[in-house]
Amino acid sequence: MTITVPATSANLGPGFDTLGLAIKMRNSVSIKPSKFHSVSLKGEGSKNNKLKDNNMFVNIFNDFYFNLSKRKSNFRFEFYNEVPLSRGLGSSSAVITSAIASAYAIADVKITKQQILNLALSYEPHPDNIAPAVLGGFTVSTVENHEVKVLKKNLPYELQSIVVIPNRPISTAQSRKTLPVKYTKEEAIFNISHSSLLTAAMFSENWDMLKIASADIFHQQYRMKSMPELFAVQKLALESGALMSTLSGSGSTFFNLVHRSDAKNICNILRKAFPHFNILIFDLDNDGLITKA
Amino acid sequence: MTITVPATSANLGPGFDTLGLAIKMRNSVSIKPSKFHSVSLKGEGSKNNKLKDNNMFVNIFNDFYFNLSKRKSNFRFEFYNEVPLSRGLGSSSAVITSAIASAYAIADVKITKQQILNLALSYEPHPDNIAPAVLGGFTVSTVENHEVKVLKKNLPYELQSIVVIPNRPISTAQSRKTLPVKYTKEEAIFNISHSSLLTAAMFSENWDMLKIASADIFHQQYRMKSMPELFAVQKLALESGALMSTLSGSGSTFFNLVHRSDAKNICNILRKAFPHFNILIFDLDNDGLITKA
Repeated sequence: MTITVPATSANLGPGFDTLGLAIKMRNSVSIKPSKFHSVSLKGEGSKNNKLKDNNMFVNIFNDFYFNLSKRKSNFRFEFYNEVPLSRGLGSSSAVITSAIASAYAIADVKITKQQILNLALSYEPHPDNIAPAVLGGFTVSTVENHEVKVLKKNLPYELQSIVVIPNRPISTAQSRKTLPVKYTKEEAIFNISHSSLLTAAMFSENWDMLKIASADIFHQQYRMKSMPELFAVQKLALESGALMSTLSGSGSTFFNLVHRSDAKNICNILRKAFPHFNILIFDLDNDGLITKA
Repeated sequence: MTITVPATSANLGPGFDTLGLAIKMRNSVSIKPSKFHSVSLKGEGSKNNKLKDNNMFVNIFNDFYFNLSKRKSNFRFEFYNEVPLSRGLGSSSAVITSAIASAYAIADVKITKQQILNLALSYEPHPDNIAPAVLGGFTVSTVENHEVKVLKKNLPYELQSIVVIPNRPISTAQSRKTLPVKYTKEEAIFNISHSSLLTAAMFSENWDMLKIASADIFHQQYRMKSMPELFAVQKLALESGALMSTLSGSGSTFFNLVHRSDAKNICNILRKAFPHFNILIFDLDNDGLITKA
């Protein structure tokens, strides 16, 4: 059995813990019954031997598989990871959701995408990465009574993403600590209105509204302080024609949404200005989690 | 020249100063050149003689008309108002936007709906009533550089509104004072995610998501305290099948969105429980401001 799951960019500016979308940069894992437990790891994280011995995917998979099958079995796990670790591209959510889905698949127990999302909340309480990882597309989500409530919009072929991946992480926990504990009514209304307008722009495909709608005063300015070059990335991306340019999750990656016809040009401009960052063009993803027998 | 403009319901729960929609309850005014200034007033507010002598519509109209034509002229104004005053149904926004539009029409100077919205900001700094009043439909708006940025979704024939109009007002100024000055990050995220989800539900016509998406923790609970029956209105409306039930603007009216096929039944249930309130079914409005020569 093989399962693949996309990278995701959450928040998208004003949509704190709410908005996200999926990027066609995928982790995949194939799982086979085996006499002994073994793990092979290629791609992102493959140089980190700790990931072989204490692998979050394997731990979650084993918990669910044991609960479902009531027996301990051994498997060979072959990972091929494209999603970089600790860069705000949803690598944890990719691992959590694909581990749950594959445990159900191997145990031959049916599970819906909605159920996968609800189970994933035990490991990741914010829905903004898990929702697009599982469903693909642009997602708007909240949590109500331990369930993810989510609506999805497919993204058109005409749009692409440019991800600017810095050479170092911003810690999520550290990054959350730098945020204010309270916001004024006016600050809150700023993000309420911009997140709603961004949602309306995505659902109605009014791409020209995204630049204004993606403004945020809740988190980006605080988080970007620890990597001030990111302000320059955002400014240059928007000046060069990006439809929106936002900190991906809690960083350090910057996510840029662009017209496909502009992608190469904007990517070249960014690469020239930030040669030490890994800057890549990816299609957007409307599939989310895919399981193949 | 005759101009008509619809009532509007703003906030819609979580979308503070952001979301609104138009209701086919209309104010209209016909304006004719005349030797002397005169005002006739029928419908809502007609018993209030102050409205004849110091009429906000006439004052705004005269300011704009004088600026555009550079001369003082007299007109006969004939108002027919359906929108109740001071009940949270956007009567001020109806007056402001229609006064600006009619001054331009009488002066024979072209103006777009977007320009009307931007000019209206001088009188009403929040865009959530003026946007649906001018454009009709469901609107998501914010203000950027003294301009209203707005996206609109037409509402289908299949939906209707039930407005529950109490026999007394909640003062807007008083009502704003009862709100917290600051919100915690979690409170802010609650309204960001719900307002965004409500927007997604409207644009994708996922009506069943509205009940959850329309939850709010920013303003309704504080404002409704001064008229506690409103909690019972909301509870009964939702239990009886309303898709959403939210304080209209800063109140005192409660706005309920319902399937057309359920409207009469829900209206009867509410009328029975709240016989002292004026409870009416209205179509939704997708036209906004209409000017007829």
